[in-house]
Amino acid sequence: MRVCGRLVLPRKQRSLDLTQVSEWDEGKVQRKDDYLAAEEPLEIRIGKHPLSVTMRTPGDDLELAAGFLLTEGLVQRREQIATLEHDPGDRENPGALRGNVVRVELAPDAMPDFDKMRRHFFAASSCGICGKASIDFVRARVMHPPNSDFRLDPEVLVKLPDELRASQAVFGRTGGLHAAALFDARGKLLVLREDIGRHNAVDKVIGWAILENRMPLKDVVMLVSGRGGFEIIQKAIVAGLPVVASVSAPSSLAVQLAREMNLTLIGFLRGRRFVVYAGDDRLAKSG
Amino acid sequence: MRVCGRLVLPRKQRSLDLTQVSEWDEGKVQRKDDYLAAEEPLEIRIGKHPLSVTMRTPGDDLELAAGFLLTEGLVQRREQIATLEHDPGDRENPGALRGNVVRVELAPDAMPDFDKMRRHFFAASSCGICGKASIDFVRARVMHPPNSDFRLDPEVLVKLPDELRASQAVFGRTGGLHAAALFDARGKLLVLREDIGRHNAVDKVIGWAILENRMPLKDVVMLVSGRGGFEIIQKAIVAGLPVVASVSAPSSLAVQLAREMNLTLIGFLRGRRFVVYAGDDRLAKSG
Repeated sequence: MRVCGRLVLPRKQRSLDLTQVSEWDEGKVQRKDDYLAAEEPLEIRIGKHPLSVTMRTPGDDLELAAGFLLTEGLVQRREQIATLEHDPGDRENPGALRGNVVRVELAPDAMPDFDKMRRHFFAASSCGICGKASIDFVRARVMHPPNSDFRLDPEVLVKLPDELRASQAVFGRTGGLHAAALFDARGKLLVLREDIGRHNAVDKVIGWAILENRMPLKDVVMLVSGRGGFEIIQKAIVAGLPVVASVSAPSSLAVQLAREMNLTLIGFLRGRRFVVYAGDDRLAKSG
Repeated sequence: MRVCGRLVLPRKQRSLDLTQVSEWDEGKVQRKDDYLAAEEPLEIRIGKHPLSVTMRTPGDDLELAAGFLLTEGLVQRREQIATLEHDPGDRENPGALRGNVVRVELAPDAMPDFDKMRRHFFAASSCGICGKASIDFVRARVMHPPNSDFRLDPEVLVKLPDELRASQAVFGRTGGLHAAALFDARGKLLVLREDIGRHNAVDKVIGWAILENRMPLKDVVMLVSGRGGFEIIQKAIVAGLPVVASVSAPSSLAVQLAREMNLTLIGFLRGRRFVVYAGDDRLAKSG
């Protein structure tokens, strides 16, 4: 596989922008510098076909594209991605695409039916018209059901948020980025990615795992900042993750999906307390 | 206009679901009841054509659909929406669609070119391939540039978050919903809507304004919980709002768009402090 995205480093490829703002505090106004979480559109193309445009924080674009391809059901294995690179147009005319186009070539057996795909993305989209249909749709894409033998020590689990925060170089400065991280069963951080969009942060860590040939993620825990909605759980299940934890609340459909697919879903992971919404079996009660 | 969505009240149309969970606290485990923010897909159809599917919190679906039509540039005025209702199939076979389909009929002059629309939503999507193209795209949709004569007293502004929280009946219980609210220049709450998706909460308040014949929102302030990303600012500008405030950080592209379109963009609105990222002119320095 050719992974050559970093050959071209466009000007705008950075996760923070510096700007001048006015700060008001108790009626006093002062000009100051402030860091902003960078946001730019990323277009993923399969050959010449545009597949999707997502608003993302620049950086780790190839991982983002690889993760998107997997979690949307277009590929299941690294070998199905023949080429993955920033669009070569960036090299010929730097600044025109500004590093915002990733071009993918798939192996012949993975090439999608573009008419079918267009219907999939546009028409009935990735969902049906009720939660049940949405869940059936996810079920159809799953290659590896969540590993039912995986066990996680609650003492390991409660340490993960501190680990995440300590590793989040950017978050403290902007307050504007979501994070997703993968940990092994002993709580060792494998990878952390940040993005203005929570689903992008998740695609980036899953994409990292594909490119590192670590799929399926059957012995891995994912921690996400913010809420766990349906899309996050969908992506986790397609990637084969057995446990997803969040510092906040999941949605009703996220819980329903996790229960039907037997994924362990944890919310409100704060201090030494957490709530288990699905898949209690993977947690051993300590003490 | 026929607005008859509430004729059919499907079983699942509620914003909270009650479920049983396990709470772990310092090694002790107990079963308890917990409220979850409801999440279900909503499909918006124009006649028989599916337009979009979004994961949303059920409730105020007609407002959500009306707001989406406006902020995506399909309609500019209430009169262009001839029919707006939950799909009549719900009445004939309750439970099949579960209140998750809203059907729209547009006035003849507003009927879109579906081939063009499909390209718009799918192919190059709603963005170009760089922030500049995205901003140009928004500019092309704007009917009413933000009102440059509008003025907001900072003393009014700093009171809005408390007002929002006091009115958020649901938030305190689930911790899982985003909110968007519209206020007049004196800080009076006009409307508050909540949703699992921040962009849906914004579409709901804008949709409320369309159905109440209050467009454009030239003397109105929008407050959103959470971050202000590009899409939120885009929707605000298309709706003619002069001021958007958030309790958290905006993204780089949100700031760039607000500056180019002269929208007043406020972040980190907490206590008596806030940061102005664009459009300082609308704020009178007090004291």
